[in-house]
Amino acid sequence: MSKAFRDTAAEAQHCQSICVQTIQHCLEVGGSHVEPSHIQILQDCSEICETTGTMLMRSSVQHNQVTAACADICERCAQSCDRFTGDAQMKACAEACRRCAAACRQIAQMRPGSPGHHSVP
Amino acid sequence: MSKAFRDTAAEAQHCQSICVQTIQHCLEVGGSHVEPSHIQILQDCSEICETTGTMLMRSSVQHNQVTAACADICERCAQSCDRFTGDAQMKACAEACRRCAAACRQIAQMRPGSPGHHSVP
Amino acid sequence: MSKAFRDTAAEAQHCQSICVQTIQHCLEVGGSHVEPSHIQILQDCSEICETTGTMLMRSSVQHNQVTAACADICERCAQSCDRFTGDAQMKACAEACRRCAAACRQIAQMRPGSPGHHSVP
Amino acid sequence: MSKAFRDTAAEAQHCQSICVQTIQHCLEVGGSHVEPSHIQILQDCSEICETTGTMLMRSSVQHNQVTAACADICERCAQSCDRFTGDAQMKACAEACRRCAAACRQIAQMRPGSPGHHSVP
Repeated sequence: MSKAFRDTAAEAQHCQSICVQTIQHCLEVGGSHVEPSHIQILQDCSEICETTGTMLMRSSVQHNQVTAACADICERCAQSCDRFTGDAQMKACAEACRRCAAACRQIAQMRPGSPGHHSVP
Repeated sequence: MSKAFRDTAAEAQHCQSICVQTIQHCLEVGGSHVEPSHIQILQDCSEICETTGTMLMRSSVQHNQVTAACADICERCAQSCDRFTGDAQMKACAEACRRCAAACRQIAQMRPGSPGHHSVP
Repeated sequence: MSKAFRDTAAEAQHCQSICVQTIQHCLEVGGSHVEPSHIQILQDCSEICETTGTMLMRSSVQHNQVTAACADICERCAQSCDRFTGDAQMKACAEACRRCAAACRQIAQMRPGSPGHHSVP
Repeated sequence: MSKAFRDTAAEAQHCQSICVQTIQHCLEVGGSHVEPSHIQILQDCSEICETTGTMLMRSSVQHNQVTAACADICERCAQSCDRFTGDAQMKACAEACRRCAAACRQIAQMRPGSPGHHSVP
């Protein structure tokens, strides 16, 4: 497993965790925090991060479109969290989403067979 | 939930199920059936189908890249199964993958807000 | 794959689907429908059903405690849905949960190696 | 989220990751490493760990049977890995499984409402 894959998988796992916690936080706060579109992007983000993390952990050669999709969904999730200024949980979630998006964006462009892509001994 | 979403979610669930069963079948048969790249594409396919199905079941507006990725992975999985001629499980798996790919391909092109995309009362 | 396993896996997949749809429904309705404990049990139920379905589809010999846990969580989810009288989505969800619970309860008691447990040719 | 929940969720995520990597490793090594029952327990373990981690991250009150099931499956997975002496990946996997099992065992016994169970401010 290459370092780039390992690091991105770790970002995806962290992002999945914080999205799951943020949904719970939003439900407890209520009001505009439980707007269906906001909860939906948090759910989508947590799930695509989970799938992305698992594909990277198995050094999948099929990851490119999935990591690209994950990057986009993470960015949309960060934007949805940004709207809630002054909410520490949402801020932490947006940051995790942006880190995961950046890591996925890089991985998505690696061609299978390139040096960073394959396992290094 | 629109009919197109419901039908594609059902194809994705069916494809996920048959991929999981096919992995088990391959492990029991052994030999070329347990080639790492073949098992890997079956694993990837089962997981992206699961995520796709769940996103569609919640009528997600973020599905486009995920359904497109799912279609591609399903097609690759079908091709990997095609190589094992005379194996009924692999044939059934390839067929389910192709049906799921076709359904995902159609859904992936729908713009959020188009008639087929949103729930119909 | 035995018939009992296949049927229970199908109930678990159906229950997972309807729980995911019901969460979306609850978010759209708002008010008491988005009570954190109600959404939480729907989330837990959808995920344990997903795991249960996948384990049964691979004819896992490790399923007993998982199917037992799934049965209990499905029953709690049904009870949580019951409180919303006159809501057709919640009624359909409670019914799917109860069917899944009943199927899981039966499977949970099968010993690995018993006739219903293993695949039949 | 209580510290006990957070720590156990982290162990479950780590165990899920290493099981996924170990499956890939086993497929590459072949031979007795791809014995169906060994791959099956690794698959079951990775999935129940994923579900357990997610339930704990949302501070679920429904976790008791799931964490208990996870502990048992992790222990069986560790035992299956133990049989491959001299394989560093399998040794690392067995260790992660045993740490996750110990953490889950403790959490499984906490009653909802006990001090360790609920979030601490």
